[in-house]
Amino acid sequence: MPKVRVHNVTVSLDGFMAGPNQRLDAPFGDGVGWGDELHAWFVGAMEDLAAGKGGTDVEYFARGDRNIGATIMGRNMFGPQRGAWEDESWQGWWGDNPPYHHDVFVHTHHPRPTLEMAGGTTFHFTDESPDQVLGRAFAAADGKDVRIGGGAATIRQYLSAGLIDELHLAVAPMLIGRGERLLDDLGAGIDGYRVSELVGSSTVTHAVLVRR
Amino acid sequence: MPKVRVHNVTVSLDGFMAGPNQRLDAPFGDGVGWGDELHAWFVGAMEDLAAGKGGTDVEYFARGDRNIGATIMGRNMFGPQRGAWEDESWQGWWGDNPPYHHDVFVHTHHPRPTLEMAGGTTFHFTDESPDQVLGRAFAAADGKDVRIGGGAATIRQYLSAGLIDELHLAVAPMLIGRGERLLDDLGAGIDGYRVSELVGSSTVTHAVLVRR
Repeated sequence: MPKVRVHNVTVSLDGFMAGPNQRLDAPFGDGVGWGDELHAWFVGAMEDLAAGKGGTDVEYFARGDRNIGATIMGRNMFGPQRGAWEDESWQGWWGDNPPYHHDVFVHTHHPRPTLEMAGGTTFHFTDESPDQVLGRAFAAADGKDVRIGGGAATIRQYLSAGLIDELHLAVAPMLIGRGERLLDDLGAGIDGYRVSELVGSSTVTHAVLVRR
Repeated sequence: MPKVRVHNVTVSLDGFMAGPNQRLDAPFGDGVGWGDELHAWFVGAMEDLAAGKGGTDVEYFARGDRNIGATIMGRNMFGPQRGAWEDESWQGWWGDNPPYHHDVFVHTHHPRPTLEMAGGTTFHFTDESPDQVLGRAFAAADGKDVRIGGGAATIRQYLSAGLIDELHLAVAPMLIGRGERLLDDLGAGIDGYRVSELVGSSTVTHAVLVRR
Protein backbone atom coordinates (compact mmCIF):
# COMPACT_ATOMS: atom_id res chain seq x y z
CA MET A 1 0.00 0.00 0.00
CA PRO A 2 1.34 3.45 -0.82
CA LYS A 3 2.70 5.40 2.16
CA VAL A 4 2.74 8.95 3.42
CA ARG A 5 6.35 9.95 4.00
CA VAL A 6 8.36 12.91 5.24
CA HIS A 7 12.08 13.20 4.55
CA ASN A 8 15.04 15.46 5.16
CA VAL A 9 13.43 17.67 7.73
CA THR A 10 16.21 19.34 9.69
CA VAL A 11 15.74 20.44 13.27
CA SER A 12 18.14 22.05 15.72
CA LEU A 13 19.21 20.10 18.80
CA ASP A 14 16.52 21.98 20.70
CA GLY A 15 13.89 20.87 18.19
CA PHE A 16 13.24 23.90 16.00
CA MET A 17 12.77 23.81 12.21
CA ALA A 18 12.98 27.58 11.95
CA GLY A 19 13.47 30.67 14.06
CA PRO A 20 10.83 33.37 14.59
CA ASN A 21 9.70 35.90 11.95
CA GLN A 22 9.88 33.76 8.79
CA ARG A 23 9.63 36.06 5.76
CA LEU A 24 10.77 36.62 2.18
CA ASP A 25 14.34 37.60 2.99
CA ALA A 26 14.56 35.09 5.87
CA PRO A 27 12.53 31.98 4.91
CA PHE A 28 13.84 30.12 7.98
CA GLY A 29 13.31 33.05 10.33
CA ASP A 30 15.66 35.20 12.36
CA GLY A 31 19.17 33.87 12.68
CA VAL A 32 18.76 30.87 10.35
CA GLY A 33 19.98 31.22 6.76
CA TRP A 34 19.45 28.62 4.05
CA GLY A 35 22.58 26.53 3.66
CA ASP A 36 23.93 27.75 7.00
CA GLU A 37 24.69 25.57 10.00
CA LEU A 38 21.18 24.08 10.11
CA HIS A 39 21.08 22.84 6.51
CA ALA A 40 24.80 22.39 5.86
CA TRP A 41 24.46 18.59 5.94
CA PHE A 42 21.67 18.79 3.33
CA VAL A 43 23.66 20.97 0.94
CA GLY A 44 26.67 18.69 1.45
CA ALA A 45 24.58 15.58 0.73
CA MET A 46 23.17 17.15 -2.46
CA GLU A 47 26.69 17.96 -3.64
CA ASP A 48 28.05 14.53 -2.68
CA LEU A 49 25.17 12.80 -4.46
CA ALA A 50 25.76 14.89 -7.59
CA ALA A 51 29.47 14.00 -7.39
CA GLY A 52 28.66 10.28 -7.11
CA LYS A 53 29.86 10.04 -3.51
CA GLY A 54 28.18 7.94 -0.82
CA GLY A 55 27.90 8.08 2.94
CA THR A 56 25.27 8.17 5.65
CA ASP A 57 23.98 11.66 4.81
CA VAL A 58 23.71 10.84 1.10
CA GLU A 59 21.83 7.63 1.83
CA TYR A 60 19.23 9.39 3.98
CA PHE A 61 19.01 12.33 1.60
CA ALA A 62 18.45 10.12 -1.46
CA ARG A 63 15.71 8.08 0.22
CA GLY A 64 13.55 11.19 0.16
CA ASP A 65 13.09 11.19 -3.60
CA ARG A 66 12.56 7.47 -4.09
CA ASN A 67 9.10 6.30 -5.19
CA ILE A 68 7.37 9.64 -4.54
CA GLY A 69 4.41 10.39 -6.82
CA ALA A 70 2.96 13.55 -5.27
CA THR A 71 3.83 16.16 -2.65
CA ILE A 72 1.73 18.03 -0.11
CA MET A 73 2.95 21.23 1.50
CA GLY A 74 1.69 24.12 3.59
CA ARG A 75 1.21 27.57 2.18
CA ASN A 76 4.18 28.90 4.18
CA MET A 77 6.48 26.43 2.45
CA PHE A 78 5.20 27.59 -0.94
CA GLY A 79 5.92 31.22 -0.22
CA PRO A 80 6.42 33.99 2.30
CA GLN A 81 3.07 35.75 1.79
CA ARG A 82 0.39 35.43 4.46
CA GLY A 83 -3.37 36.01 4.16
CA ALA A 84 -5.02 36.77 0.80
CA TRP A 85 -2.68 36.69 -2.23
CA GLU A 86 -1.69 40.26 -3.05
CA ASP A 87 -1.05 39.05 -6.56
CA GLU A 88 -0.57 35.62 -8.06
CA SER A 89 2.80 36.23 -9.67
CA TRP A 90 4.58 34.31 -6.89
CA GLN A 91 5.28 30.81 -8.21
CA GLY A 92 7.15 29.28 -5.28
CA TRP A 93 10.76 29.43 -4.12
CA TRP A 94 12.06 27.03 -6.77
CA GLY A 95 12.19 28.97 -10.08
CA ASP A 96 10.64 27.98 -13.43
CA ASN A 97 11.43 24.28 -13.17
CA PRO A 98 10.73 23.16 -9.59
CA PRO A 99 12.43 19.97 -8.41
CA TYR A 100 9.15 18.08 -7.88
CA HIS A 101 8.15 16.96 -11.39
CA HIS A 102 4.75 15.77 -10.14
CA ASP A 103 1.55 17.15 -8.61
CA VAL A 104 2.05 19.34 -5.55
CA PHE A 105 -0.90 20.17 -3.30
CA VAL A 106 -0.60 23.42 -1.35
CA HIS A 107 -2.81 23.84 1.72
CA THR A 108 -4.15 27.39 1.84
CA HIS A 109 -7.24 29.19 3.05
CA HIS A 110 -6.93 31.29 -0.12
CA PRO A 111 -7.19 29.00 -3.16
CA ARG A 112 -5.98 30.27 -6.54
CA PRO A 113 -5.85 28.72 -10.02
CA THR A 114 -3.74 25.63 -10.63
CA LEU A 115 -0.21 26.48 -11.73
CA GLU A 116 1.53 24.31 -14.32
CA MET A 117 5.29 24.72 -14.27
CA ALA A 118 8.02 23.40 -16.55
CA GLY A 119 9.32 19.89 -15.87
CA GLY A 120 6.01 18.35 -14.89
CA THR A 121 5.38 20.13 -11.59
CA THR A 122 1.77 21.27 -11.13
CA PHE A 123 0.81 23.27 -8.04
CA HIS A 124 -2.78 22.79 -6.82
CA PHE A 125 -4.10 25.19 -4.17
CA THR A 126 -6.73 23.84 -1.84
CA ASP A 127 -8.53 24.56 1.40
CA GLU A 128 -9.75 20.97 1.78
CA SER A 129 -8.99 18.87 4.88
CA PRO A 130 -5.78 16.78 5.15
CA ASP A 131 -7.86 13.62 4.56
CA GLN A 132 -9.34 15.02 1.37
CA VAL A 133 -6.04 16.37 0.09
CA LEU A 134 -4.39 13.05 0.84
CA GLY A 135 -7.06 11.31 -1.24
CA ARG A 136 -6.32 13.55 -4.21
CA ALA A 137 -2.57 13.18 -3.72
CA PHE A 138 -2.76 9.36 -3.66
CA ALA A 139 -4.83 9.47 -6.85
CA ALA A 140 -2.25 11.73 -8.49
CA ALA A 141 0.63 9.56 -7.24
CA ASP A 142 -0.87 6.59 -9.07
CA GLY A 143 0.46 3.86 -6.80
CA LYS A 144 3.56 5.64 -5.60
CA ASP A 145 3.99 7.21 -2.16
CA VAL A 146 2.97 10.73 -1.13
CA ARG A 147 5.47 13.05 0.51
CA ILE A 148 4.57 15.76 2.99
CA GLY A 149 7.12 18.46 2.20
CA GLY A 150 6.56 20.79 5.16
CA GLY A 151 6.67 23.18 6.86
CA ALA A 152 6.51 22.37 10.53
CA ALA A 153 2.83 23.24 10.98
CA THR A 154 1.74 21.03 8.08
CA ILE A 155 3.85 18.07 9.22
CA ARG A 156 2.47 18.48 12.75
CA GLN A 157 -1.08 18.57 11.42
CA TYR A 158 -0.65 15.27 9.55
CA LEU A 159 1.36 13.70 12.38
CA SER A 160 -1.17 14.54 15.08
CA ALA A 161 -3.89 13.05 12.87
CA GLY A 162 -1.82 9.86 12.55
CA LEU A 163 -1.66 10.23 8.76
CA ILE A 164 2.12 9.90 8.36
CA ASP A 165 3.72 6.47 7.92
CA GLU A 166 7.39 7.44 8.05
CA LEU A 167 9.16 10.63 9.09
CA HIS A 168 12.89 11.15 8.65
CA LEU A 169 14.50 14.05 10.45
CA ALA A 170 18.06 15.22 10.86
CA VAL A 171 19.12 16.78 14.15
CA ALA A 172 21.78 19.44 13.54
CA PRO A 173 24.42 20.49 16.08
CA MET A 174 23.02 23.95 16.69
CA LEU A 175 20.57 25.74 18.96
CA ILE A 176 17.81 28.04 17.73
CA GLY A 177 16.09 28.73 21.04
CA ARG A 178 12.71 29.95 19.80
CA GLY A 179 10.51 29.71 16.72
CA GLU A 180 8.70 26.80 15.13
CA ARG A 181 9.13 23.39 16.74
CA LEU A 182 8.49 20.14 14.88
CA LEU A 183 7.68 17.58 17.59
CA ASP A 184 5.43 19.68 19.78
CA ASP A 185 1.75 19.89 20.68
CA LEU A 186 0.96 16.64 18.88
CA GLY A 187 -1.56 15.47 21.47
CA ALA A 188 -2.28 11.77 21.52
CA GLY A 189 -1.13 11.56 17.90
CA ILE A 190 2.50 11.22 18.98
CA ASP A 191 1.69 8.09 21.00
CA GLY A 192 1.14 6.24 17.75
CA TYR A 193 4.79 6.61 16.79
CA ARG A 194 8.15 5.18 17.80
CA VAL A 195 11.75 5.90 16.80
CA SER A 196 12.96 3.15 14.47
CA GLU A 197 16.37 4.60 13.59
CA LEU A 198 18.84 6.92 15.33
CA VAL A 199 22.10 7.12 13.42
CA GLY A 200 24.88 9.66 13.82
CA SER A 201 26.88 10.87 10.83
CA SER A 202 29.83 13.24 10.98
CA THR A 203 27.47 16.20 10.52
CA VAL A 204 24.04 15.41 12.05
CA THR A 205 22.02 12.67 13.69
CA HIS A 206 19.38 11.01 11.54
CA ALA A 207 16.19 9.77 13.14
CA VAL A 208 13.20 7.97 11.67
CA LEU A 209 9.73 7.84 13.21
CA VAL A 210 7.33 5.06 12.19
CA ARG A 211 4.02 3.82 13.49
CA ARG A 212 4.08 1.65 16.61
CA MET B 1 39.11 28.12 36.89
CA PRO B 2 36.63 25.59 38.22
CA LYS B 3 33.61 24.98 36.01
CA VAL B 4 29.89 24.37 36.37
CA ARG B 5 29.05 21.15 34.56
CA VAL B 6 26.04 19.00 33.77
CA HIS B 7 26.43 15.40 32.64
CA ASN B 8 24.43 12.37 31.61
CA VAL B 9 21.11 14.12 31.24
CA THR B 10 18.94 11.96 29.02
CA VAL B 11 16.19 13.43 26.86
CA SER B 12 13.81 11.82 24.41
CA LEU B 13 14.10 12.66 20.71
CA ASP B 14 11.32 15.20 21.27
CA GLY B 15 13.29 16.82 24.07
CA PHE B 16 11.65 15.64 27.29
CA MET B 17 13.53 14.59 30.44
CA ALA B 18 10.39 13.19 32.02
CA GLY B 19 6.72 12.64 31.33
CA PRO B 20 3.90 14.33 33.23
CA ASN B 21 2.88 13.56 36.83
CA GLN B 22 6.28 12.80 38.38
CA ARG B 23 5.72 11.15 41.77
CA LEU B 24 7.08 8.59 44.26
CA ASP B 25 6.12 5.51 42.26
CA ALA B 26 6.93 7.20 38.92
CA PRO B 27 9.94 9.51 39.44
CA PHE B 28 10.18 10.12 35.70
CA GLY B 29 6.45 10.61 35.24
CA ASP B 30 3.79 8.71 33.36
CA GLY B 31 5.08 6.16 30.90
CA VAL B 32 8.79 6.53 31.75
CA GLY B 33 10.32 3.96 34.09
CA TRP B 34 13.86 4.16 35.47
CA GLY B 35 16.13 1.91 33.43
CA ASP B 36 13.56 1.67 30.64
CA GLU B 37 14.06 2.83 27.07
CA LEU B 38 15.02 6.39 28.10
CA HIS B 39 17.83 5.44 30.49
CA ALA B 40 18.85 2.07 29.04
CA TRP B 41 22.09 3.55 27.65
CA PHE B 42 22.94 4.90 31.13
CA VAL B 43 22.38 1.58 32.88
CA GLY B 44 24.37 -0.15 30.13
CA ALA B 45 27.24 2.32 30.50
CA MET B 46 27.32 1.83 34.29
CA GLU B 47 27.48 -1.93 33.83
CA ASP B 48 30.10 -1.71 31.08
CA LEU B 49 32.24 0.62 33.18
CA ALA B 50 32.00 -1.74 36.16
CA ALA B 51 32.99 -4.63 33.87
CA GLY B 52 35.99 -2.70 32.59
CA LYS B 53 34.57 -2.29 29.09
CA GLY B 54 34.95 0.87 26.98
CA GLY B 55 32.97 2.53 24.23
CA THR B 56 31.37 5.86 23.42
CA ASP B 57 28.63 5.60 26.06
CA VAL B 58 31.12 4.62 28.77
CA GLU B 59 33.41 7.52 27.86
CA TYR B 60 30.63 10.10 28.13
CA PHE B 61 29.21 8.48 31.24
CA ALA B 62 32.57 8.43 33.04
CA ARG B 63 33.30 12.08 32.26
CA GLY B 64 30.44 13.00 34.57
CA ASP B 65 32.25 11.94 37.74
CA ARG B 66 35.67 13.35 36.93
CA ASN B 67 36.92 16.27 39.02
CA ILE B 68 33.56 17.03 40.64
CA GLY B 69 33.78 18.49 44.15
CA ALA B 70 30.16 19.41 44.88
CA THR B 71 26.69 18.89 43.42
CA ILE B 72 23.63 21.14 43.18
CA MET B 73 20.16 19.75 42.57
CA GLY B 74 16.53 20.79 42.67
CA ARG B 75 14.18 19.62 45.35
CA ASN B 76 12.30 17.42 42.86
CA MET B 77 15.47 15.49 42.14
CA PHE B 78 16.00 14.92 45.87
CA GLY B 79 12.54 13.49 46.40
CA PRO B 80 8.95 13.21 45.23
CA GLN B 81 7.39 15.39 47.94
CA ARG B 82 6.16 18.86 47.02
CA GLY B 83 5.49 21.83 49.31
CA ALA B 84 6.32 21.75 53.04
CA TRP B 85 8.06 18.57 54.26
CA GLU B 86 5.44 16.33 55.82
CA ASP B 87 8.27 14.77 57.80
CA GLU B 88 12.01 14.78 57.38
CA SER B 89 12.53 11.03 57.25
CA TRP B 90 13.01 11.14 53.44
CA GLN B 91 16.74 11.06 52.78
CA GLY B 92 16.80 11.03 48.99
CA TRP B 93 16.41 8.30 46.38
CA TRP B 94 19.89 6.86 46.90
CA GLY B 95 19.85 4.87 50.14
CA ASP B 96 22.17 5.20 53.16
CA ASN B 97 25.34 5.74 51.14
CA PRO B 98 24.52 8.08 48.23
CA PRO B 99 26.85 8.01 45.23
CA TYR B 100 27.99 11.65 45.69
CA HIS B 101 30.58 11.48 48.48
CA HIS B 102 30.74 15.28 48.69
CA ASP B 103 28.52 18.25 49.58
CA VAL B 104 25.17 18.35 47.80
CA PHE B 105 23.11 21.56 47.80
CA VAL B 106 19.36 21.07 47.38
CA HIS B 107 17.31 24.06 46.20
CA THR B 108 14.05 24.20 48.15
CA HIS B 109 11.64 26.83 49.41
CA HIS B 110 11.37 24.68 52.55
CA PRO B 111 14.83 24.43 54.16
CA ARG B 112 15.49 21.69 56.72
CA PRO B 113 18.53 20.67 58.78
CA THR B 114 21.67 19.52 57.03
CA LEU B 115 21.77 15.76 56.52
CA GLU B 116 25.03 13.89 56.84
CA MET B 117 24.99 10.52 55.16
CA ALA B 118 27.47 7.65 55.08
CA GLY B 119 30.29 7.83 52.57
CA GLY B 120 30.90 11.57 52.81
CA THR B 121 27.69 12.86 51.21
CA THR B 122 26.18 15.84 53.06
CA PHE B 123 22.85 17.27 51.87
CA HIS B 124 22.39 21.02 52.48
CA PHE B 125 18.89 22.47 51.97
CA THR B 126 18.73 26.10 50.92
CA ASP B 127 16.36 28.71 49.53
CA GLU B 128 19.20 31.00 48.41
CA SER B 129 19.59 32.16 44.79
CA PRO B 130 21.55 30.11 42.21
CA ASP B 131 24.41 32.63 42.44
CA GLN B 132 24.62 32.26 46.21
CA VAL B 133 24.33 28.48 46.14
CA LEU B 134 27.01 28.33 43.45
CA GLY B 135 29.30 30.37 45.69
CA ARG B 136 28.85 27.89 48.54
CA ALA B 137 29.26 24.94 46.18
CA PHE B 138 32.52 26.26 44.74
CA ALA B 139 33.81 26.79 48.30
CA ALA B 140 32.84 23.23 49.21
CA ALA B 141 34.37 21.87 45.98
CA ASP B 142 37.73 23.34 46.98
CA GLY B 143 39.11 23.91 43.50
CA LYS B 144 37.23 21.12 41.75
CA ASP B 145 34.22 21.64 39.46
CA VAL B 146 30.59 21.86 40.52
CA ARG B 147 27.98 19.62 38.95
CA ILE B 148 24.33 20.56 38.50
CA GLY B 149 22.59 17.23 38.93
CA GLY B 150 19.08 18.13 37.80
CA GLY B 151 16.18 18.02 37.34
CA ALA B 152 15.08 19.82 34.23
CA ALA B 153 13.81 22.95 36.00
CA THR B 154 17.05 23.42 37.93
CA ILE B 155 19.24 22.92 34.87
CA ARG B 156 17.05 25.38 32.93
CA GLN B 157 17.33 27.93 35.73
CA TYR B 158 21.15 27.82 35.70
CA LEU B 159 21.30 27.64 31.89
CA SER B 160 19.05 30.65 31.32
CA ALA B 161 21.20 32.60 33.80
CA GLY B 162 24.30 31.63 31.80
CA LEU B 163 25.84 29.90 34.83
CA ILE B 164 26.63 26.54 33.19
CA ASP B 165 29.95 26.01 31.42
CA GLU B 166 29.35 22.59 29.93
CA LEU B 167 26.21 20.48 29.49
CA HIS B 168 26.29 16.89 28.24
CA LEU B 169 23.03 15.34 27.18
CA ALA B 170 22.10 12.05 25.59
CA VAL B 171 19.24 11.93 23.11
CA ALA B 172 17.44 8.58 23.33
CA PRO B 173 15.51 6.95 20.46
CA MET B 174 12.08 7.37 22.01
CA LEU B 175 9.23 9.86 22.12
CA ILE B 176 7.59 11.08 25.32
CA GLY B 177 5.25 13.66 23.83
CA ARG B 178 4.51 15.74 26.92
CA GLY B 179 6.03 16.54 30.29
CA GLU B 180 9.18 18.36 31.29
CA ARG B 181 11.40 19.64 28.49
CA LEU B 182 15.07 20.45 29.01
CA LEU B 183 15.92 22.98 26.28
CA ASP B 184 12.84 25.18 26.48
CA ASP B 185 11.91 28.67 27.63
CA LEU B 186 15.54 29.63 28.16
CA GLY B 187 15.10 33.18 26.90
CA ALA B 188 18.24 34.95 25.74
CA GLY B 189 20.28 32.61 27.95
CA ILE B 190 20.34 29.97 25.22
CA ASP B 191 22.01 32.40 22.80
CA GLY B 192 25.16 32.17 24.89
CA TYR B 193 25.61 28.50 24.02
CA ARG B 194 26.63 26.39 21.05
CA VAL B 195 26.80 22.65 20.36
CA SER B 196 30.44 21.53 20.52
CA GLU B 197 29.88 17.77 20.12
CA LEU B 198 27.22 15.60 18.47
CA VAL B 199 28.25 11.96 18.47
CA GLY B 200 26.07 8.94 17.79
CA SER B 201 26.64 5.67 19.64
CA SER B 202 24.76 2.44 19.01
CA THR B 203 22.20 3.42 21.67
CA VAL B 204 21.87 7.23 21.83
CA THR B 205 23.29 10.47 20.46
CA HIS B 206 25.56 12.42 22.77
CA ALA B 207 25.59 16.21 22.58
CA VAL B 208 27.61 18.77 24.49
CA LEU B 209 26.70 22.44 24.91
CA VAL B 210 29.41 24.95 25.79
CA ARG B 211 29.57 28.74 25.89
CA ARG B 212 29.96 30.53 22.57
